[in-house]
Order: sequence, then structure tokens, then C-alpha cells
Amino acid sequence: MIDQRNDTVVLGFPDYSVQARRFAAAAAVPYAEIAIHAFPDGESLVKLPADIAEHVVLCRTLTDANNRLIELELAMATARNQGAKRLTLVAPYLCYMRQDKAFHPGEAVSQRIIGELLARRLDAIVTVDPHLHRVSRLEDAVPIRRTLATTATGLMADWVKARGGDPLILGPDDESAKWVSQIASAGDRGYFVAHKERRGDRDVRIALPDADFDGRDVVLADDVASTGHTLAEASRQVLERGAASVVVLVTHALFAEGALANLRSAGVADIVSTDSIPHPSNRLHIDQLLASALHEVWSPTAESG
Amino acid sequence: MIDQRNDTVVLGFPDYSVQARRFAAAAAVPYAEIAIHAFPDGESLVKLPADIAEHVVLCRTLTDANNRLIELELAMATARNQGAKRLTLVAPYLCYMRQDKAFHPGEAVSQRIIGELLARRLDAIVTVDPHLHRVSRLEDAVPIRRTLATTATGLMADWVKARGGDPLILGPDDESAKWVSQIASAGDRGYFVAHKERRGDRDVRIALPDADFDGRDVVLADDVASTGHTLAEASRQVLERGAASVVVLVTHALFAEGALANLRSAGVADIVSTDSIPHPSNRLHIDQLLASALHEVWSPTAESG
Repeated sequence: MIDQRNDTVVLGFPDYSVQARRFAAAAAVPYAEIAIHAFPDGESLVKLPADIAEHVVLCRTLTDANNRLIELELAMATARNQGAKRLTLVAPYLCYMRQDKAFHPGEAVSQRIIGELLARRLDAIVTVDPHLHRVSRLEDAVPIRRTLATTATGLMADWVKARGGDPLILGPDDESAKWVSQIASAGDRGYFVAHKERRGDRDVRIALPDADFDGRDVVLADDVASTGHTLAEASRQVLERGAASVVVLVTHALFAEGALANLRSAGVADIVSTDSIPHPSNRLHIDQLLASALHEVWSPTAESG
Repeated sequence: MIDQRNDTVVLGFPDYSVQARRFAAAAAVPYAEIAIHAFPDGESLVKLPADIAEHVVLCRTLTDANNRLIELELAMATARNQGAKRLTLVAPYLCYMRQDKAFHPGEAVSQRIIGELLARRLDAIVTVDPHLHRVSRLEDAVPIRRTLATTATGLMADWVKARGGDPLILGPDDESAKWVSQIASAGDRGYFVAHKERRGDRDVRIALPDADFDGRDVVLADDVASTGHTLAEASRQVLERGAASVVVLVTHALFAEGALANLRSAGVADIVSTDSIPHPSNRLHIDQLLASALHEVWSPTAESG
């Protein structure tokens, strides 16, 4: 294990500055910021502080994935060139986790390829609620010895409890079962999961479980919301079945353009997310989670494989 | 050397389809196209043909660099996973060639880092007029054994000759001297070069050389035009000095937003470029250049290092 106070620095990026500073403070590690200049032709100039610590913790949330992955590659390589002996990535949202197999011949298995791109430079990675499905362990997706996937489901359960009442917790599809079961069990509650049939990026049908929604306040929970179509469809159906209210509770507020309007028009009364991705719906701070995870991933027993 | 007809395929991307097909035809190699699907969250799904040849030639021009580099990484890795034994990149425009040193402490040396990212997957690379400056050899920028930088300056000299008259060939700055000297010498003409002082991405001053512009048709030539500010400023000054007309002649029509309007308002009468980057100004086809370069880079004597 390392003494994080003396030989470690957290390097943040301008697009996640407030959150990365809060995380560094929670971890009691100095913070410095990487400067990014976008040239008119779309290339990026990445500038690290002139002097860095022996252990560099890059904190970058990986939405806008292609752009940020290249900037991250430039930052990782430069940190190494500047003499960083250990390199940790704290990626509150980790991209490219969904394409974990070739669904048709010739398709890139993006999860593995991007995972190897990261693994090549890193000694450790920390993320929150990665969308792992067929590949179930983070170390299989990002093949390095120190990996840690922490979860915000405890924070979400606390939020449900603090809100009071007797909500019905519902996951919009089978893949959400992992998250809603954790939220429910942390709050000592039951849960239901709907079944989804996907016909395209923005065309989904869902079948509600056999539950009594009449008069209930429904919490629709998931790890990530992108277009919001699945959550919107679930909201519509539970309200038709007599639910009193619907709120959406997600770890990652990815929300593509038009998603919020979609959810509002489907009757969603409130949207709550963690600050893993900056968004107006952020209500739950993950700084302490990330700080604990950074400590833990470098503990002597954390090494895998 | 390889028999390109039997065991080679050119794989193009949708954003350079017409040009890549023309290059494949010139090289007498079969063509197939990679499909790209952009998910609503900005991630890319890259799909290669189910069956590929032993030698895969990826043809991708690297504007919009960060996005296309990640898609290229997905394609290169997938080609290898599908059993490609040799992998060549034909990148008519090669990105990240300008940041060839750390101008300030802590800056990423992007040329080297991106060069290594490409080199890790490739056996050979072909490009046209790469912007090499302090690092003068392509194999130092992209460290692989088979590299070939071909040049469109011969095509440009032919265009000048076919156009007739007695034009004055001018490079807008010192870095352009390499290209204008080649254009001039291929056409057996003289040339001049202006001196540039850059104060920012869009703030440049130039000092014209001591030449008689009065009544002359000026050809402003360079490897790449991005914002067009330097070329616009040069055009303004030579017209003030009595030039009869100005045309712009570049290999790479990178042209950022507003660049064409800039050039027009600076009195530029015509803009001519190669099709290394698709653009309305494309007048010169590089398909034969690329086909010869592909042949040459795999010749027994081409290996470097």
C-alpha cells in the first residue's frame, strides 16, 4: 500500500473539475488540473502540470467516449513520460462496456479492445457501476491486476429511505435486476423487474411484471439512462396501471438529447442521479465512494489474477 | 512483396467511400466497406466484413481525429482478431503531425503518442504530404518498419502547368517552403516564401518576400489549410502589392468552419485541393499515387530501420 498523502496527485480534466476536486479532497490527495486546448481542426493539445507525483491518479468520466479516450491516451502517455511510476484511472463512468461480444460476424468487441487500450497504460482502475453483463468481472473487461468496481446502489438506497413512504422499486429490464436488487436489499425492501424487447436504439417494448401498482409511488431504477426510452415506456405503463407517481433513479445520467423531455412527457415527476456524469439531475455525490475505492484498489489484498 | 490481387483487400469507411473505392480500383485490389453505427451516447460500433483477406489495407483519412482514431483502433484490432496477417493503413491525411515536441513543460508530444498507437497495430503505413517539421522522417513519427510518405506536389505542378500563364508560386510561411519548392521544381519554375509570425490559432501576421507581384497571377501553395487565416492574409497582401489574381493550391483541404468565406473575402479567386480530404475544392485525384505507394511500401527494399 502507498502513502497517498505524500507521493500521489489527482489530475482532473476541465469537464469534470468540480467533482474531481471533491474526490481528491475526500481522498486527502493534492489536486491539479490538466489543460486541454482544442485546435480548430479538432485535434487536442493536452498539458499536464510540469511536475507530477510518483503516483498519478487521472480522474476522467468517459462520456463523449472517442474524444475523451484519445485525450486520456495522450495524458496517460505523458504522465509516464514525465516519470509517473504508478498510474491509476478513476473513471466514474466507464465507456464501451456494452459491446461485450460480436453480436454479428465481423463486429468489433469494443469492450475488450478499449479495455486493452486502457490496460496497456494503467496499473489500476476504479469505476462505479460499470455495465457488465456477459463479461461479469471488471478485470476481464479491463485486464489489469488492480481493478475495482464500486457501486452507488447504497447511496441510492439511502436516498429512497430518506425520501420516506412505501415506494415500489422497479427495474425496467432484465439487465437492471443487478442494480435494483442491490438498491432494494440495501434498503431492506422488495423489488420488481420488467422485461424488455429492443427493436432498435430508440424502439423498445416492455412488459410489466405481475405486481399491484395501484396507488403506489414507483421508483424506476437503473445503472444508466441514455435515450430514456425504456424508462419512459415503463413510466407510461405503471401510470396506466394506477401508480400514484414515478421517479427515475440512476447512477449514470448519460441522457442523450431529448431524453429529459421524453421522461417528462411520460409522466416522470423527478429524476435523480449521482454526479458520475455532470448533469442537472445530479443529487448524490460519489466523492467518498471514489476515495474509499482508491484506497482499497491499492491495498495489498486487492490484486487480482 | 505480395501478390496484391489474391490475398489483399482494401477496407474503406463510409466517410471516404468514393475515394477509397477509386484507390482500390487503381491498385487492382478488391474493395469492401466497414459499417459504422453511432449509438445515441456517442460510442461507435465498427463492423468489418465477416471474411477478410490475409492482408488488410485500411483506408481512412484522419480528419475529425479523435473520433476516427478510436474507430480505427476498433477496426485494426478486429482485423487482427479475424486473422489478418498483415495490416496496412493508407491515411491520405495523417493527423497529429504538428505537435512534434513539448513546446511547454508538461505538454503531450502528440505526434509520438499517436504514432505509437498506430504503430502498435500496423505493419505498414502510407500517407500523403504529412506535416513533418522538426521530426523529419515518417518512420520517426510512426515507428514501424514500412512507412511511405508520398507527395501530391507532382500533381499540383501538373495542374499549374496545365493552367498555363506565368504564375508566381508563393508559400505563405517557412514551413511551406518544402512543398512549394517541390511544386516549383517539378514544374521547372522559381518560387517565393513569406515569413509568418503566429500569435494564436486565428491570429497570424505575415511578411511578404521581396518580389515583384505587380500584374502577376499568384499561386499560394501549402500542404494543409485549416482556418485559412495565413493564406487569407497572404492573399490580401499580394493583391495590395498589385497581383492580378490569387489562387490557393493545397494538398489537404482541412478547412475549418468559416475558412472558405475568409479566403473569398481576402480576394482568393479559386481554391484547388486533392481528394485526400473530401471537400468541394477537390480537383486532383490521388488514387494512382496511393496505389503506387501501396505497391512500393511492400516492396522488398522498402523496409526501414
